[in-house]
Amino acid sequence: MNFCSDNVTEVCPEIMAALIAANEGAMMPYGGDEYTQRLETKFSLIFETPVTVFPVTTGSAANALALSAITPGYGAIYCHAESHINVDECGAPEFYTGGAKLVTLNGTDAQIHPSELSKTLENAGAGVVHHVQPAAVSITQATEVGTVYLPEEIGEIAKITHAHNLCLHIDGARLANAVVSLDCAPADITWRAGVDVLCFGATKNGAMAAEAAIFFNQDLAKTFAYRRKRSGHLFSKMRYLSAQLETYITDNLWLKNASHANEMATKLAQGLVKLPLLRLCHPVEANEVFVEIPESMVNALRADGFEFYVWQEGTLPIIRLVTAFNTREEDVDALLKSVKRHSVVDLME
Amino acid sequence: MNFCSDNVTEVCPEIMAALIAANEGAMMPYGGDEYTQRLETKFSLIFETPVTVFPVTTGSAANALALSAITPGYGAIYCHAESHINVDECGAPEFYTGGAKLVTLNGTDAQIHPSELSKTLENAGAGVVHHVQPAAVSITQATEVGTVYLPEEIGEIAKITHAHNLCLHIDGARLANAVVSLDCAPADITWRAGVDVLCFGATKNGAMAAEAAIFFNQDLAKTFAYRRKRSGHLFSKMRYLSAQLETYITDNLWLKNASHANEMATKLAQGLVKLPLLRLCHPVEANEVFVEIPESMVNALRADGFEFYVWQEGTLPIIRLVTAFNTREEDVDALLKSVKRHSVVDLME
Amino acid sequence: MNFCSDNVTEVCPEIMAALIAANEGAMMPYGGDEYTQRLETKFSLIFETPVTVFPVTTGSAANALALSAITPGYGAIYCHAESHINVDECGAPEFYTGGAKLVTLNGTDAQIHPSELSKTLENAGAGVVHHVQPAAVSITQATEVGTVYLPEEIGEIAKITHAHNLCLHIDGARLANAVVSLDCAPADITWRAGVDVLCFGATKNGAMAAEAAIFFNQDLAKTFAYRRKRSGHLFSKMRYLSAQLETYITDNLWLKNASHANEMATKLAQGLVKLPLLRLCHPVEANEVFVEIPESMVNALRADGFEFYVWQEGTLPIIRLVTAFNTREEDVDALLKSVKRHSVVDLME
Amino acid sequence: MNFCSDNVTEVCPEIMAALIAANEGAMMPYGGDEYTQRLETKFSLIFETPVTVFPVTTGSAANALALSAITPGYGAIYCHAESHINVDECGAPEFYTGGAKLVTLNGTDAQIHPSELSKTLENAGAGVVHHVQPAAVSITQATEVGTVYLPEEIGEIAKITHAHNLCLHIDGARLANAVVSLDCAPADITWRAGVDVLCFGATKNGAMAAEAAIFFNQDLAKTFAYRRKRSGHLFSKMRYLSAQLETYITDNLWLKNASHANEMATKLAQGLVKLPLLRLCHPVEANEVFVEIPESMVNALRADGFEFYVWQEGTLPIIRLVTAFNTREEDVDALLKSVKRHSVVDLME
Repeated sequence: MNFCSDNVTEVCPEIMAALIAANEGAMMPYGGDEYTQRLETKFSLIFETPVTVFPVTTGSAANALALSAITPGYGAIYCHAESHINVDECGAPEFYTGGAKLVTLNGTDAQIHPSELSKTLENAGAGVVHHVQPAAVSITQATEVGTVYLPEEIGEIAKITHAHNLCLHIDGARLANAVVSLDCAPADITWRAGVDVLCFGATKNGAMAAEAAIFFNQDLAKTFAYRRKRSGHLFSKMRYLSAQLETYITDNLWLKNASHANEMATKLAQGLVKLPLLRLCHPVEANEVFVEIPESMVNALRADGFEFYVWQEGTLPIIRLVTAFNTREEDVDALLKSVKRHSVVDLME
Repeated sequence: MNFCSDNVTEVCPEIMAALIAANEGAMMPYGGDEYTQRLETKFSLIFETPVTVFPVTTGSAANALALSAITPGYGAIYCHAESHINVDECGAPEFYTGGAKLVTLNGTDAQIHPSELSKTLENAGAGVVHHVQPAAVSITQATEVGTVYLPEEIGEIAKITHAHNLCLHIDGARLANAVVSLDCAPADITWRAGVDVLCFGATKNGAMAAEAAIFFNQDLAKTFAYRRKRSGHLFSKMRYLSAQLETYITDNLWLKNASHANEMATKLAQGLVKLPLLRLCHPVEANEVFVEIPESMVNALRADGFEFYVWQEGTLPIIRLVTAFNTREEDVDALLKSVKRHSVVDLME
Repeated sequence: MNFCSDNVTEVCPEIMAALIAANEGAMMPYGGDEYTQRLETKFSLIFETPVTVFPVTTGSAANALALSAITPGYGAIYCHAESHINVDECGAPEFYTGGAKLVTLNGTDAQIHPSELSKTLENAGAGVVHHVQPAAVSITQATEVGTVYLPEEIGEIAKITHAHNLCLHIDGARLANAVVSLDCAPADITWRAGVDVLCFGATKNGAMAAEAAIFFNQDLAKTFAYRRKRSGHLFSKMRYLSAQLETYITDNLWLKNASHANEMATKLAQGLVKLPLLRLCHPVEANEVFVEIPESMVNALRADGFEFYVWQEGTLPIIRLVTAFNTREEDVDALLKSVKRHSVVDLME
Repeated sequence: MNFCSDNVTEVCPEIMAALIAANEGAMMPYGGDEYTQRLETKFSLIFETPVTVFPVTTGSAANALALSAITPGYGAIYCHAESHINVDECGAPEFYTGGAKLVTLNGTDAQIHPSELSKTLENAGAGVVHHVQPAAVSITQATEVGTVYLPEEIGEIAKITHAHNLCLHIDGARLANAVVSLDCAPADITWRAGVDVLCFGATKNGAMAAEAAIFFNQDLAKTFAYRRKRSGHLFSKMRYLSAQLETYITDNLWLKNASHANEMATKLAQGLVKLPLLRLCHPVEANEVFVEIPESMVNALRADGFEFYVWQEGTLPIIRLVTAFNTREEDVDALLKSVKRHSVVDLME
């Protein structure tokens, strides 16, 4: 019973079926195939606006390429200190931009707070040759700790971002979970709120390896194709990448998958919150649960067959539990039962 | 009937079956899965020596990452003017190395000739601060024009390369075709001949998207993992990449696929060479046929349903015909028949 | 009366004389001249150990080049949040390293505190592929706020740095001021304390434009010459650069110049501290005085003919007063008198 | 008697005097000084058009920075194979552009020939994602072999360059020598002929270390200030750089210096051409003479006290003789006499 991450999962049946269906006959390479050719139209319908779409295979690639399209080497990207681009990509944004600086903010629940952003940008030294030049703001939706920005929060961030002539980027590795959580249109938390470019994730939510850089501000997309090729991220057999993405956004598969993941996380959180000795570290608004548990419980749960990451070591360690499109309700029940049992034991000691 | 490239093909049945088989249950990400864990052992057996293996999805990524591990930004990479790294990767080696220079050589049949290499390296300005510093030699096996280096030719190039303290890299996007063509052990044209690092291709020969950077000189591999991650080429669901590679090198699948491709190219070449008005531009030693044809024949063949690239425009254009693991013998026959028919017409005019 | 910075100053007479003296006859370029040839010996004597020396013209160049010699693109450099390399070089270290990340620490008085460094490095993710890899620690001596690390403090930082297999870099744009302040041997706050590479400044202390990257760990210097050339920092008429540096370290000129600057700063600080309404923001240990003054006094002082930078805006702004080798004592007296007069006025209001 | 290069020379008296004159009082740093402030106006007058000017200290810096302002990382720069940017800058353009490719052309006398340029650009793959994208053409005036482009030749190159939407860059390390040679207005071989950006050299012609990137197409200059700072090429005590440049272009000093250098080269060439056994390798149109001499003469001349570089080894080596603003006519006479004497000896053997 693996709660480590949503990337430990297999490919969902619909997407595997699409891969098998795409495996038929010769198709022109590098996006000359029919799947890729119709992808922009399909994404434009999902987002209710014309978009430019570039499929790639990893979230790090999507993020770094998108950021490099909007940030010069002497530029600064404003992001949360806990963001994936800052912590978990081994400096990919710096590499792709030719050395831009990630300036980190520290809002609660891994969210950038508009007031801090505003204050930071006002003192950023725009136009002063000694300082890196403000170029982009990057937020994550859903965030690294499973919280979700409201459309109006994104709108406020976008307003500040644009007021300083910067571009707004979303790392949407878990965008589906946010859309489901907010029960909003995808447009509401992207271009309608002022987002310029989105990295749209599918891998964590049922795909094999499929992400897309989606430009709402299509002028910004002009250099992307060269950047993608030059970084080795242009697939020759592109059909297999596009087929995943197409199926993912067809018949609401992406939202169905995310709904299940979110429901399992909610169930988990609701069960955990009732137990003594535990503390939820963040609101559970998507498919991640961060919970502080007694140190002894870590090994006890592992002995019971549960896999998860310890997010923060200590005498009251914080563990991360991630649910996915295929998390089984019985596994959630089993986990809750196990936690409950160990809580009682702990209390009695 | 598509002879454009070996990357227009679908995934071969064995590899698709492997992907389906791998789609079972949770597995730890980023190479923590069982497929990836056993990959180095399997490749070490194939190459009869311990190797360090890094799966990636594209040949450009494999090449650029491998070259960046052996070339500093102020370095020079010696390669053929027609090589993929020089012509077809939109500057990926330059990007990954931080600006190394590709110094091009001009041997016949897209092969570097040892004497030219030797002379070039002697005058390369090693140690002179004004000049980029010689760092690596890169050859392609099989070459961009479907020719193959003999083991002793690679050995001679390696000797010169190492005498000048450079590293030898092989772009092996079509290594299988070369191994089959030479009927040699994979070791004979790699480490035994003095190769330090190989980019081993599977995509063009039956995989979906799977290549591997293989270090024979394992000391050179130390920085690769960070470089791969930092460029967004570390897959989270790595099992699907490793499963392709594992199946590809199991039960000689890679050599069986390449054998068929080579046979079809040979058959094509043997048929074409008998016809008037045509000229084979290079020896056909792998799965590519470059043939000079009358200009009128280009459209005539296309009208007959054959797809291919015109490699060089002109009154006697050169077209490229590429065969693959799944090229049907009847399509080769049909193509030969069609060419023959148009040759007669042309002669009569 | 300009207290803006030590870089508003002219060239000191001894160095100007040296430039005139060097302007005699043909000399081989790029360091083939006699001045450059004897520079390493002279610096080795000053530092009591063999050193490798590379003259360049700006501190940003020296810092960025030196850091790039010890930090890979996927590396992290640990430095103070207020350090010049982090704030005032428009991302030069990121550019030269190919995208390394500057991880900032927040000690008081612009100094890195060993305990924070230690804790940070322990959690830096060395060996974990998702994170940038710890490579270098950079400290500034004297610091950006005019404080000075003690030899034993540098020793402690060096010990932690080396325990984690990182290199220690000093930005010594104002090293002379620190040496004078501590009344120590230059070796005591560099290699004897464990420093690997020093950027040794002369420009702010009497030179026209002359800095030197000085490697105590000479193995680290191997790539520097190529990096310098490749960045356009190798002078052709190198004699003029080396002549400045030679004169600077001859007959204790560098220490004499710094002594005067420090004395003037001390005098200034001692005068200011007696006055009401003011607050010294940092200990005055070199040639910089940061003082909090009433807002009205900023314009009053400017009206009196004093130039300086407002370091931090606000109702109680902080201004920076920098002294130099040529600061006139009468100007310091005049400034103190002017401040005193305005203080009285302010108090009476 | 040193004929190695024009960079073995000292600073000419007028410029040294200017440096001494500038050494008076405090001035605001980073270009806030009066010298820098009036520099653009002065250069605009010289070039008869408004220009944006950025002083730097080396030609490599000027070239690489200027090229990086007009070439993306995925771009191609077309230049002569023998150009300084391709051969003698250790890859500076590649470093500054983030990995652009220098595509080399091979015209005689180190000049790009319009027809070859035209053909190359037509086949450059503009818009094809696999290829680096044509961005800039760079020519050198005077060239590396001392020849000079006519205004109409530059005009033709500019026309082709712009027809393909590229920018035209001139490496003008020896622009003064070309202007004098052609007896034209500086505008005639720069913006009036279609040049977008010029690297204007002074170092080789009497300055200490002073070059300027001059943008005729001022829109292209927008990012330069950040690029210069970020590469450590923004001087703090900028007055000393600007004072050199100002004096250099005042009262025709640059042209007077170049006139003398050219005259000495002409005299040298006219003397050499009369002698047997020798061959001038290129027309002598500026201040460089390339001459093929008997192998034995190399040492004989050196024994007579002449210093020069052997440009190409062999049984008939080619030596390079460079004259400068301060070359003494008696040294030219002595050299001619010495060559003559050795020629006779050689003939008699």
